[in-house]
Amino acid sequence: MNINLKRLQKNIEELDKIGRDPEGGTSRLAYSKEYYEGLELVKKAMLEAGLEVKMDSVGSLFGTKKGKTDDIIMIGSHTDTVAHGGPFDGILGVLGGVEVMHTLNENGAELDHTVIIANWAEEEGNVVKGLIGSGAFIGAMEAELPALEEKLKKVNISPEDVRNAKFEALDKVKAYLELHIEQGGILDTEGLDIGIVSSIVGIKRFIVTLYGKDNHAGTTPMNLRDDAMVKAAKLMLDLEAECRKIDETMVCTVGWLKAYPGEQNIIPGKVQFPVEIRAVDPNSIDKLVEFMKEKLSSVSCDIQPTMFQNETMMSQSIMDKVKESADELGLKSKVMASGAGHDCMMIANAIKNSGMIFAPSVNGVSHCPQEWTEWEDVANSTNVLMKTLLKLDKDSTFY
Amino acid sequence: MNINLKRLQKNIEELDKIGRDPEGGTSRLAYSKEYYEGLELVKKAMLEAGLEVKMDSVGSLFGTKKGKTDDIIMIGSHTDTVAHGGPFDGILGVLGGVEVMHTLNENGAELDHTVIIANWAEEEGNVVKGLIGSGAFIGAMEAELPALEEKLKKVNISPEDVRNAKFEALDKVKAYLELHIEQGGILDTEGLDIGIVSSIVGIKRFIVTLYGKDNHAGTTPMNLRDDAMVKAAKLMLDLEAECRKIDETMVCTVGWLKAYPGEQNIIPGKVQFPVEIRAVDPNSIDKLVEFMKEKLSSVSCDIQPTMFQNETMMSQSIMDKVKESADELGLKSKVMASGAGHDCMMIANAIKNSGMIFAPSVNGVSHCPQEWTEWEDVANSTNVLMKTLLKLDKDSTFY
Repeated sequence: MNINLKRLQKNIEELDKIGRDPEGGTSRLAYSKEYYEGLELVKKAMLEAGLEVKMDSVGSLFGTKKGKTDDIIMIGSHTDTVAHGGPFDGILGVLGGVEVMHTLNENGAELDHTVIIANWAEEEGNVVKGLIGSGAFIGAMEAELPALEEKLKKVNISPEDVRNAKFEALDKVKAYLELHIEQGGILDTEGLDIGIVSSIVGIKRFIVTLYGKDNHAGTTPMNLRDDAMVKAAKLMLDLEAECRKIDETMVCTVGWLKAYPGEQNIIPGKVQFPVEIRAVDPNSIDKLVEFMKEKLSSVSCDIQPTMFQNETMMSQSIMDKVKESADELGLKSKVMASGAGHDCMMIANAIKNSGMIFAPSVNGVSHCPQEWTEWEDVANSTNVLMKTLLKLDKDSTFY
Repeated sequence: MNINLKRLQKNIEELDKIGRDPEGGTSRLAYSKEYYEGLELVKKAMLEAGLEVKMDSVGSLFGTKKGKTDDIIMIGSHTDTVAHGGPFDGILGVLGGVEVMHTLNENGAELDHTVIIANWAEEEGNVVKGLIGSGAFIGAMEAELPALEEKLKKVNISPEDVRNAKFEALDKVKAYLELHIEQGGILDTEGLDIGIVSSIVGIKRFIVTLYGKDNHAGTTPMNLRDDAMVKAAKLMLDLEAECRKIDETMVCTVGWLKAYPGEQNIIPGKVQFPVEIRAVDPNSIDKLVEFMKEKLSSVSCDIQPTMFQNETMMSQSIMDKVKESADELGLKSKVMASGAGHDCMMIANAIKNSGMIFAPSVNGVSHCPQEWTEWEDVANSTNVLMKTLLKLDKDSTFY
């Protein structure tokens, strides 16, 4: 039994047309006209797959197939995109999940578990904040509601809507599976077919401000300068080298930089930039943060933490089943961490048996019009998803 | 015979009030209401000093004291400021020159040369382009007129006005003197009183664009990155070290930096920044430019030259007279290059006997509300200006 790639490809291509941007890529931001238009397509595919469809009060869409019991296995991802995004990020997980159910339905498969395919709202966080749909589903938004209220209002969602979206039968959900593109270049570079996700990395973000003394770029000799830009350049290179040294799976990024006053003929007296560090091992992150503070100990500066997200470990029993499924299909797989955040990270707070399957990203690019996954890999990874679901369905020892 | 500091200080303080900005400093941009209001004050001071006053067709103001001959010595600087500028940049040269003439007048001094004190229009270049007044005076604007026509129109100046501002008796001008604050920290750091300017540095400016590959900051391991920001940081540190090595009087500045796409969670695929290099010796500049090109030879990049200005050498005979004057007054002086551009740079194209005197800048800051020169230094440097003028007046061997 294999999934129907032709049907899945058609659905992915059709959805990608909704919000196609003349400037390149697809812009289907959460809660936009295009987002809801996309949900209509997902709904249609769910109905064709024999699922019962329901939208919750924060814009997540669910397709349910009743099983022999009330115990639930969920499969989910998202269909909102970043601006000028690609055709697969999130979409593969939702439409791949629907395709799995369509194939099972066609083949008359009867599952022990009830299966729910979730299309989570606002994963990307470009409109309100990331992971709204999955966060509301597990009832994890209460503390953040006051801060988000205004943004939510703009998309016609009240605090009550967020509270009402909490799933009443959360204790019945025994496992959560998410198929996603890797968005990095490891599988592609190493010629592998499937990523078995072992964890989602922890993230620490800071805004670093370095102070010097702004001065005339012509009249101030090099030895009398206190150039904040030069200090920033030193720190960036130090961080880059130390990051590789501490932990080869850790990454550290400076994505922008603003110099003040920002004139070509004035030595910058102040430079500000973000430092983002991601790693599976929280000790690695802490070591790099300590190194940064040490390097800046004699520099006039301000290090403002802006985000701290713990690492999330994936279920070992799901990892084992993904590996078996890949092996049975003759696919080369690798255990790897996810460097990006996903709905699975949120869901894992409530459902301990959560896991992810990665499909290769060509050249490792994502969140851009060049984002691509070969159709063969779309088929392979969706078949792995189906096999893993069937293995979970027949094995109640994992919970 | 000494200048009257009280009178000079009062004039400087009064002028500084015109355009005083509630946000800090003084904003008296060229051709603004405040600029012309300032000229009224300068005109009044000139009249009190016994000078004949005349404005030309581009907004420069001249105060003339007839001498025994038609040969002319000029003293000049400017009274326009940058936004939020300080009280001395340019102003010291104009009001110091007027004060010299006032003192000579009071003491009944009769000079061989006719002396003209010039208040050049639009030195700073915040409105039309730098050095408009001095450029028009020597008839050096013709080639640039088409490009500037629109901006000039906005301040009610026609191309004909610019042409008409050319001084008809340019061949009679035998010397040009400009007193200015240093705007750097050399005199202040070394505890000196007077800078004897030997040259005004040459400048080369470039906009450098470095390309990498923008990618997800979480999913792209360090070894698979092509991070344009890291490349920029390397180049900045290399330039900084090499600049000091090649020529200790050379300076190199990166005043701003823009990363693309500029998100904290995306590795920058493109980074753009200006590189400004200033030195007296053009060979030094060329060596550093070659070094930069060499360093970037294997990097995808674009190096766009945006400005090239030759160095300007000052008159040796004027330098000698400034030195003698400082010595006679018991002031400690130093021969130094000017890292900033000045009207003198423009005038030197037509008048080979051109020279500058620097007064110390406290902490070397300028173009900001903190710009300061001690009143004692104001008096000392203006006395040096007077003595130098008198020496030039009595020595016709220099031309």
